[in-house]
Amino acid sequence: MALLRAGEVLAFLLLALLLSNAMSIRVHPRNNNSSSGSSSTSTVNNDSFCLSWRLAVEANNVRAWRTVPTQCLRHVEIYMIDGQYDRDMELIMEQISSYVDGLPLLGDAMDAWVLDVDDTCISNIYYYKGKKYGCDPYDPLGFRAWATKGGCPAIPSVLRLFNKLVAKGIKVILVTGRDEESLGQVTRDNLHNQGFIGYERLILRSAEYKGQSAVNYKSNMRKQLEDAGYRIWGNVGDQWSDLQGDCLGNRTFKLPNPMYFVP
Amino acid sequence: MALLRAGEVLAFLLLALLLSNAMSIRVHPRNNNSSSGSSSTSTVNNDSFCLSWRLAVEANNVRAWRTVPTQCLRHVEIYMIDGQYDRDMELIMEQISSYVDGLPLLGDAMDAWVLDVDDTCISNIYYYKGKKYGCDPYDPLGFRAWATKGGCPAIPSVLRLFNKLVAKGIKVILVTGRDEESLGQVTRDNLHNQGFIGYERLILRSAEYKGQSAVNYKSNMRKQLEDAGYRIWGNVGDQWSDLQGDCLGNRTFKLPNPMYFVP
Repeated sequence: MALLRAGEVLAFLLLALLLSNAMSIRVHPRNNNSSSGSSSTSTVNNDSFCLSWRLAVEANNVRAWRTVPTQCLRHVEIYMIDGQYDRDMELIMEQISSYVDGLPLLGDAMDAWVLDVDDTCISNIYYYKGKKYGCDPYDPLGFRAWATKGGCPAIPSVLRLFNKLVAKGIKVILVTGRDEESLGQVTRDNLHNQGFIGYERLILRSAEYKGQSAVNYKSNMRKQLEDAGYRIWGNVGDQWSDLQGDCLGNRTFKLPNPMYFVP
Repeated sequence: MALLRAGEVLAFLLLALLLSNAMSIRVHPRNNNSSSGSSSTSTVNNDSFCLSWRLAVEANNVRAWRTVPTQCLRHVEIYMIDGQYDRDMELIMEQISSYVDGLPLLGDAMDAWVLDVDDTCISNIYYYKGKKYGCDPYDPLGFRAWATKGGCPAIPSVLRLFNKLVAKGIKVILVTGRDEESLGQVTRDNLHNQGFIGYERLILRSAEYKGQSAVNYKSNMRKQLEDAGYRIWGNVGDQWSDLQGDCLGNRTFKLPNPMYFVP
């Protein structure tokens, strides 16, 4: 019986070891797939819905949405902070870079490029973390308080594109819906501190455009640029409203943003 | 010793049982996450790239691509056949359905809707399965042979939308780049066999538009519809070339298609 017990103890030790292995094997894929999957069925279903929702947002099929669906909080959080957003940005920047390399630039100081600012050049992800990644509704006072701190970090892949454009002699014009009077200086400082140096102009929303839709305001600004003789080769923003309307430029690029919608 | 052996046999039987359990546990999440993840690191990296590529295609950031990147064959296959494509379509159809419900229709028989045919109403997925889901280059003769069979299945969620539009009295006009002379009758039959019954017109590419880009040809067709007095409330297609150019309609919807690009 003592010998049988020894065999049984050995068996149970092995079982315990194997069980712990099995558990770690189960957890592993969840960590690896964190941007796109999970091992529990309800999370998988949620994830599937949230993948559909996010794709529809990026393809401009879902419009004028006020908040991220609450069941997608975790999906959007993981998408934004766990690598996939960065990789999505990188791939688009590579596309832009190839496009720029093929442009027939004239080099007469009128080759131009339009970039949006918020969540194009600099990121508001840490602000939106406090707003449940967009599950909470837009809070204009809260956003202004955040922007006033001037601490938005650069989006690294966009900063590299920016530097490439500047180095090629393309005039980069930053066009933002931020209010000129209250946020002009802090935005200039924020961009400078984050390495956005050498752009042609930063255009902010002046009093006369207050209350106008982003599409109208930004179309007007691009029209003025074209009237001044600039050739807008590219136009990059995280909102479809950056990329619709008039004088869009030769090609537009939509950067991902599943956290908020600007009409 | 006999007793020890009995204990060992029991232990190994239990081990074998547990191992087989662990294996099935490991496989389970892979199956559930098949559209978006995998348990091996290299596949996860591939998957991450392919997710980025597919998103960029759907947001029109990657253009004029000839083939699916070879490393994305499995990703696109799983996306197309394992549920996520269907769910993405469903979500867009829900968006369209809400939009339709809010339309101020006049009911004068001039309320109209434009639908593309291939991979909008009817699916070519089984053809593209034989073309490595788009990893093989476009094969016009092969596609014509497939289309001539008239066996493209309906996309169920789009057929439901189609029936809703017809029931609401909206004139559905199907606009396809398929050649009128060689594919007109078989396309009409294919659509009928799959339940697309009650549309206003099927417009195919006539000889005079041969060789024109889809954007030009389809813009021309929509222009003729508007000139005839139709109000195009919606315009749905799986290609950006369906949704660009002139007379786009009041709102456009981009359906997913990671298998091919039509300029």
